[in-house]
Amino acid sequence: MASTPADVKEVPGALVFEIDMPGAKTGEIKVQVEDDHTLVVSGERRRAEDKEAKYQRMERRMGKFMRRFPLPEDANLEAITACFEEGVLTVRVEKKPPPEPKKAKTIEVKVGGSSEG
Amino acid sequence: MASTPADVKEVPGALVFEIDMPGAKTGEIKVQVEDDHTLVVSGERRRAEDKEAKYQRMERRMGKFMRRFPLPEDANLEAITACFEEGVLTVRVEKKPPPEPKKAKTIEVKVGGSSEG
Repeated sequence: MASTPADVKEVPGALVFEIDMPGAKTGEIKVQVEDDHTLVVSGERRRAEDKEAKYQRMERRMGKFMRRFPLPEDANLEAITACFEEGVLTVRVEKKPPPEPKKAKTIEVKVGGSSEG
Repeated sequence: MASTPADVKEVPGALVFEIDMPGAKTGEIKVQVEDDHTLVVSGERRRAEDKEAKYQRMERRMGKFMRRFPLPEDANLEAITACFEEGVLTVRVEKKPPPEPKKAKTIEVKVGGSSEG
């Protein structure tokens, strides 16, 4: 199992996930939303195949990986972007603007036709 | 201290070091040879400064890092290349060709002037 440590941060208007996956290939990384409230990032890191290579040290953890992150209620699932750069995947989930506070309904006060007219 | 797992492999004619350092910047990575027989790779990983960010999760290990690897006797210190791609630094150290086996010295055998001519 590959090691994929993640940071999750809230910035104004969005939630940002930063996940280390050095050496992964862009085409091998999948970013999905499950059940409308879970962000799922999966993929695989592989060593280059080289039959002539003789390893003296193998510290890098390779293999498949999957990370799941709950998304908040106000996540805008239509506004998710993912970008892979320098071995770091950044997924940005925009937040829906908060619903406008309901205006208190004003009831007009009519001057009652007084019986004491 | 940032986490920088490494693979070391021998390939025909060279020794190859692959070191994970996702999110490091090329300008912040130093590759040096010390005392003619130690490869030293150092640098720093930093979180983007963003005063408005509120972290919910911080798994990625940031900070300075340094890795030292012994080099073999036959390393060609004039032929070292380093390349940073997808968060992985690859350092390739060519090996000097083995010295040619010394040819056995052949001593010509002259026909001795025989005293019994």
